[in-house]
Amino acid sequence: MNAVDAWLTDRRETIFEELKRFVRIPSVSTDPAYKGGVVEAAEFVAAALRTAGLADARVRTTAGHPVVTAAWRGAPGKPTVLVYGHFDVQPPDPLEMWRTQPFEPEIRDGRLYGRGASDDKGPMLIPVKVAQAFLACSGALPVNMVFLFEGEEEVSSAHLEDFVAANRDYLAADFVLSADGAQWRADLPSVITGSRGICALEITVRGAAKDLHSGRHGGAVANPIQALARLLSGLHDDDGRVAVPGFYDAVIELSRVELDAVANLPWSEADYLASVGAPASVGEAGYTMLQRNWLRPTLEFNGVSGGYAGPGKKTVIPAFAQAKITCRLVPDQKPEAITRAIADVLRARAPKGVTVEVKIETGGAGPYALPSDHPGLALAEEVLREVTGVAPIRVRMGATVPIGEIFKRVLGLDTVFFSFATSDEDYHAPNEFFRLASLATGLKAWRLYLQRLGA
Amino acid sequence: MNAVDAWLTDRRETIFEELKRFVRIPSVSTDPAYKGGVVEAAEFVAAALRTAGLADARVRTTAGHPVVTAAWRGAPGKPTVLVYGHFDVQPPDPLEMWRTQPFEPEIRDGRLYGRGASDDKGPMLIPVKVAQAFLACSGALPVNMVFLFEGEEEVSSAHLEDFVAANRDYLAADFVLSADGAQWRADLPSVITGSRGICALEITVRGAAKDLHSGRHGGAVANPIQALARLLSGLHDDDGRVAVPGFYDAVIELSRVELDAVANLPWSEADYLASVGAPASVGEAGYTMLQRNWLRPTLEFNGVSGGYAGPGKKTVIPAFAQAKITCRLVPDQKPEAITRAIADVLRARAPKGVTVEVKIETGGAGPYALPSDHPGLALAEEVLREVTGVAPIRVRMGATVPIGEIFKRVLGLDTVFFSFATSDEDYHAPNEFFRLASLATGLKAWRLYLQRLGA
Repeated sequence: MNAVDAWLTDRRETIFEELKRFVRIPSVSTDPAYKGGVVEAAEFVAAALRTAGLADARVRTTAGHPVVTAAWRGAPGKPTVLVYGHFDVQPPDPLEMWRTQPFEPEIRDGRLYGRGASDDKGPMLIPVKVAQAFLACSGALPVNMVFLFEGEEEVSSAHLEDFVAANRDYLAADFVLSADGAQWRADLPSVITGSRGICALEITVRGAAKDLHSGRHGGAVANPIQALARLLSGLHDDDGRVAVPGFYDAVIELSRVELDAVANLPWSEADYLASVGAPASVGEAGYTMLQRNWLRPTLEFNGVSGGYAGPGKKTVIPAFAQAKITCRLVPDQKPEAITRAIADVLRARAPKGVTVEVKIETGGAGPYALPSDHPGLALAEEVLREVTGVAPIRVRMGATVPIGEIFKRVLGLDTVFFSFATSDEDYHAPNEFFRLASLATGLKAWRLYLQRLGA
Repeated sequence: MNAVDAWLTDRRETIFEELKRFVRIPSVSTDPAYKGGVVEAAEFVAAALRTAGLADARVRTTAGHPVVTAAWRGAPGKPTVLVYGHFDVQPPDPLEMWRTQPFEPEIRDGRLYGRGASDDKGPMLIPVKVAQAFLACSGALPVNMVFLFEGEEEVSSAHLEDFVAANRDYLAADFVLSADGAQWRADLPSVITGSRGICALEITVRGAAKDLHSGRHGGAVANPIQALARLLSGLHDDDGRVAVPGFYDAVIELSRVELDAVANLPWSEADYLASVGAPASVGEAGYTMLQRNWLRPTLEFNGVSGGYAGPGKKTVIPAFAQAKITCRLVPDQKPEAITRAIADVLRARAPKGVTVEVKIETGGAGPYALPSDHPGLALAEEVLREVTGVAPIRVRMGATVPIGEIFKRVLGLDTVFFSFATSDEDYHAPNEFFRLASLATGLKAWRLYLQRLGA
């Protein structure tokens, strides 16, 4: 056995205990009541890095929760990887749904249960322990490594961009290797090659200055709900395409090879529909369900309101009605351009008798796609195949992971996702768990990845 | 001067004081806290009728608030009128908007201010005082009269139909003369020749079994808000007509004369739009605003809800979305037939990937139209012209007054509206008032009406 692997295998129980101590810290970033927990987790991570042999590891302040950095640049001429992960966690609610307490981790059936075990404390501890093993065994790492762990991933990495922009030199690297970004399925290794961006807006349709009696006034003036329904239904055509001029202009057409790769993945649409309780697959014509969810942009209505929503009836023509809209974006759609195109078309299509106001929400995020020929991606596939015995598949994410686009735009770096969580591990839900077998696989995979990269 | 008019004029101040005592009784029918007030008002009315000389006047129980009846059938061979009115009132809220207390009536500038002064205590006291004057002056009424005053008009006359059906013989008459049903404007006398009916339903569109993350699932499954918007926008065509097969089938086409009568009324659309703060008049093509509001049926959306309505954004594809719909109906549309037609079309048009549930609300009411050649209507117009010096106009109501349709269907009687309230008197709002000049005009008009009818 490889000496580094042996070092890690010998300390298997110690690493489990270290992860349990990490999970015990309630580092809920969204809730100010847990502010101290996030700081405690940052200090835990900095201490773990120093113990690993990364002497400059330290907690660094931002306008929000702290980040933790460390760097080892003792391999001149070798590549440099920027390792990313996060130590903040989702809120534990609803507490009554947990079999054991969220911040009292427990091992059952080869799984470590606890909030953050899978997202992202287990996965982010892996590169720290692997670096420690290399330094313990040989006094050196096979490549240069910079570590950046943040405490705000669960609140949209709100201050990460500012920190990255202010620390370009410290973070300089060849690419990002992310310990966050769960694999698609537990039964099949996968690499993520992109995520969709997001933008959001809100539309308000106003009619009369006040709510009106629908008998005394019905037929005389415009009904804002009717006008809103007309505007919303005009945003998609009969084929499920977004009917906004310019919406698809920046979309990079995918090759037949890329589309087929997704179409040919092992995937049961029927099982998926059963799992979410939906009667049918619906969306843009001409694409499979996974193609639509991963590769195509969408325009979704997240909320609608107006008039009376209580029990029974109230005979009112409401003064206004509203809807919330988000789009998921694919390369090279820009959030600002898309919200502007939608706002323009909504205003231009305002029916007679109403006024249309569009509010564009801030905090959009761009889509991200890793170039399919990136050497860091090929290496990830090679390593996964070796340690699992199964050839990994390439997947995308329908959801939004801001860091890929931020690292690309601010530092010019691509991100290779190399997490050993899987998407079935109930992160963001009660009874989150991390498979201890995945921890072992991950330790071996990161060791091999770094070694091959440095060879 | 006519002796009956003289009797009433001599007692002008006494009648004001009696109306003030009546208004002082807080007979709010919708609020159980005022139950005793409604009973007290019923007893006040019964006592007033007995004082007038109607010995059999009494308070009669129903499953809800009581009604008050009295009958005088001492003129065999003469017509019989069933006089209708109501002694319950709207809630006084918002209290802080009243200049004086709602149940402490006060006379200012020739107006009696107080809750119920205009709707309907002032107007309904008029026929009682006129009957008293006839009996005092001559010991007889010029026609047979039956009085039916209810305590539930402000809660949709919930138990009136049952009471009327159970008392057909007692209520037998030639037609109904209603002291309720305000005139259109204060500057122009008018007679009401009809009101629209109402029916209501609620639609629920369901997609997946639970709310889904719009990134992880967007593009894969149907969005219920999108499906609802499509269904709602399909209920009207581009000309503002209701696009439901069968919706207009039972509508009795109006003659050119009837349409022109409304089109030629003195009416400023611009003033109306300014009064409600609406930018334009909107509705079914081919009709004027008043024609649409009075003579044409409508389908209005009273509420819409689904997904997230709070501040900011929540990236959810909601499990369901809902809308509330009411229609205003014209002769001979039936509430049951219309709700069925709408429910059928909504279910038939259900988009792929969602299910559509339609709940039909009970408590619909039919439309009512008084035959244009009804002799009671012609007499009302003649009397109004004589007492005001101005020829009255014929108007309809866009709103729903269930009694017209109930009396027609249950007793076979038409209803002539002969109220001396006007629609600007802030009933259902703070600072409700009744013009004392209207009280005087009404006393004279009812005296003349009854005398001419008996001649």
